[in-house]
Amino acid sequence: MKLNHLISIKDIGKKEVLKILEESEKMENLLHSKKAVKIMDGKILATLFYEPSTRTRLSFETAMKRLGGAVIGFTDIKNTSVMKGETLGDTIRVISDYADIIAIRHPYEGSARLASEYATVPIINAGDGSNQHPTQTLLDLYTIKREVGKIDGINIAFIGDLKYGRTVHSLCHALSLFNNIKITFISPEELRIPKEIISDLEKNNTEFCEKGHIDLKGIDVVYMTRIQKERFPDLNEYQRVRGTYKLTLKHVENKNLIIMHPLPRVDEIDPRVDNLPQAKYFKQSFYGVPVRMAILKILLEN
Amino acid sequence: MKLNHLISIKDIGKKEVLKILEESEKMENLLHSKKAVKIMDGKILATLFYEPSTRTRLSFETAMKRLGGAVIGFTDIKNTSVMKGETLGDTIRVISDYADIIAIRHPYEGSARLASEYATVPIINAGDGSNQHPTQTLLDLYTIKREVGKIDGINIAFIGDLKYGRTVHSLCHALSLFNNIKITFISPEELRIPKEIISDLEKNNTEFCEKGHIDLKGIDVVYMTRIQKERFPDLNEYQRVRGTYKLTLKHVENKNLIIMHPLPRVDEIDPRVDNLPQAKYFKQSFYGVPVRMAILKILLEN
Amino acid sequence: MKLNHLISIKDIGKKEVLKILEESEKMENLLHSKKAVKIMDGKILATLFYEPSTRTRLSFETAMKRLGGAVIGFTDIKNTSVMKGETLGDTIRVISDYADIIAIRHPYEGSARLASEYATVPIINAGDGSNQHPTQTLLDLYTIKREVGKIDGINIAFIGDLKYGRTVHSLCHALSLFNNIKITFISPEELRIPKEIISDLEKNNTEFCEKGHIDLKGIDVVYMTRIQKERFPDLNEYQRVRGTYKLTLKHVENKNLIIMHPLPRVDEIDPRVDNLPQAKYFKQSFYGVPVRMAILKILLEN
Repeated sequence: MKLNHLISIKDIGKKEVLKILEESEKMENLLHSKKAVKIMDGKILATLFYEPSTRTRLSFETAMKRLGGAVIGFTDIKNTSVMKGETLGDTIRVISDYADIIAIRHPYEGSARLASEYATVPIINAGDGSNQHPTQTLLDLYTIKREVGKIDGINIAFIGDLKYGRTVHSLCHALSLFNNIKITFISPEELRIPKEIISDLEKNNTEFCEKGHIDLKGIDVVYMTRIQKERFPDLNEYQRVRGTYKLTLKHVENKNLIIMHPLPRVDEIDPRVDNLPQAKYFKQSFYGVPVRMAILKILLEN
Repeated sequence: MKLNHLISIKDIGKKEVLKILEESEKMENLLHSKKAVKIMDGKILATLFYEPSTRTRLSFETAMKRLGGAVIGFTDIKNTSVMKGETLGDTIRVISDYADIIAIRHPYEGSARLASEYATVPIINAGDGSNQHPTQTLLDLYTIKREVGKIDGINIAFIGDLKYGRTVHSLCHALSLFNNIKITFISPEELRIPKEIISDLEKNNTEFCEKGHIDLKGIDVVYMTRIQKERFPDLNEYQRVRGTYKLTLKHVENKNLIIMHPLPRVDEIDPRVDNLPQAKYFKQSFYGVPVRMAILKILLEN
Repeated sequence: MKLNHLISIKDIGKKEVLKILEESEKMENLLHSKKAVKIMDGKILATLFYEPSTRTRLSFETAMKRLGGAVIGFTDIKNTSVMKGETLGDTIRVISDYADIIAIRHPYEGSARLASEYATVPIINAGDGSNQHPTQTLLDLYTIKREVGKIDGINIAFIGDLKYGRTVHSLCHALSLFNNIKITFISPEELRIPKEIISDLEKNNTEFCEKGHIDLKGIDVVYMTRIQKERFPDLNEYQRVRGTYKLTLKHVENKNLIIMHPLPRVDEIDPRVDNLPQAKYFKQSFYGVPVRMAILKILLEN
């Protein structure tokens, strides 16, 4: 497996995805063993966060430190040379000489790709605006594999903001690599799944349908999303749709399904749902660690 | 000793306090040996600072790193998911899956207790508003033990802001667990020790008195406090009392006592006092490291 | 070699400089070996950045972590006790008890020297205002040594902001310790090299001349500088001189010289120059790591 960078889930095929999920399982076993691991002893990960994202940053740092490696980085554009007018290319060239691998989060689409053109070490895209966040997609797939037992043949429902939700778009693409997937999109009219995503599914012959209300008959995986205030140019629009697509006990009780959410969530899931065995969103967040460990290991082995 | 979390000094009895002080002494010896310690090799401490406190954060990080462990965390609420509306409970559930132990500092009273209800790993309260800061109290006790040679039977004077001073309140409670303690409270009228603290002392039969001026006859330990501007709703009130209770050479020269201060200080101690052998406030700050090492070790062993 | 602190390049003589450069070469070999190094195992570096400087901070952190050590610190004055009125002396006394060595960056001249008076561990000046930044000077010298093959006898041209450029002033002083150096200062009238620097060179019999245009005949080393907006009280003055002293292909093609720049740069070097073998500014940035490793090692060995 030859993987120099991890920029977009679209750059990797099913074979690479399966390899990463397999490696993730080994990493999960390492974590459960509670042993001090030295795989990355002497190695440095740089976490360059031009946009705050505590959860993603801490997950990457945890992954690297669990592997015995070290981390350098910044969490805020305010304290960087960017403020002195430095280009992203220059920053990446400099950091390439400090670190063995770089995870970058940046508000602009395409910035991680651009970074990979200047880097002499592997680049991991930890989110570039509304574009890609491939490690999230891989941990989503890993959660499905671990908690449903398979990915092929699953019946998944995405609920909420399907228009702006980057994680939904990337996961749809990744699922289209698998066999016999059925997707149900459940959203208000103004947050429907974009046409490009639909085209992508049609091209791969992935079965899907769209609904305007929550209906989970036959569903194996419910993928909830936060309706993000910051995505809305109009606050009235936000106020109207929030809460409309809220998951409650009656939707999921006694159903053989798992509930996922990329987190953070606000009020789109009734807190009583948290205690159901179906609720897997915190497990999903945990799975981010072994998946990122696997990605660090695979990229650094190349 | 069964200690799951360290939320309040009031949760632990004399036996636990003595056990922590004993373990702290072992940790201090480890530090003096200058050897690389591997007790926490492979373990991760999360420092979640929702409110800035460089000294406390660096002391915890030093403790963990001196034990051979790693640290993840944030120093500022601005860059966290909290800004996206996430509850403290959700953050704690997520971080519990990243780290082996969590130190939390939060501006709201009761937040550390709340965190411990969601955590699946030990929580250490690193300060929750004006409420509790138990590791400070333990390092205060350790300083007394190391520098006076005993805790039972000491004669201690608290000077300055005794109304708002969280460290004073907690230390008073902790001292009331010991025998034959005598406490002198020295403060301006408007910053007198609160009635609840007095009641607590009376309940435990701890001897105390109140004074309006500095008088250190027979005192073993002087505990100075900063008169914190941010505690005063009225700046005029602050201006009037600051400097009134300032410790100078004449108060302490040729007296067999030690001077403590939780730091940072502003101008409540004459700088010439720093050079006296009685001045122990920097030593006290240093003792924060072995005490926090002991707490990390004890909590992670359970 | 007895070096307690590294505050100013003027504190150390040629012998110490050569010793640091020699140790840097060993450190560079260690880095190239890609082995996990344990020289600083169990040791802690504190990076106290009262002023943001991502590049310098990450370079120090990388150096310490490549040596197997740990790092604590802050990146921003906002989250420090300074905001509560603490003096630098008190902060340094406290941090001296946490860390084995301290790198400090501070906006005020003389602050690193002041810090060294309170510290009980070695202090490294990582920049104090427009005054000193000795590790930059040492990495500049190391770059010359490694890329030209020698320091004695070189012919160096400094271009751009020679008035406010701290790195230029310090490097001039350091070069004056070597033999047969020839310096050409190329700058607009309002950014000419200050009289103090000229006097220093004259005292050491270092040959120099001043020019108002770029002319690189016989030059071995071109040292470019950024014309920093923040140094100019008058924005009009800045607008007038920026871009005037821009290095282009025609200045350096087919010439046997190396091009250095302390970075970050804005537009003072044509991007096409980056691909020339003469362009060494990213290499120079990389050399900051082995040089800082050497400095950490030498100071901690004393």
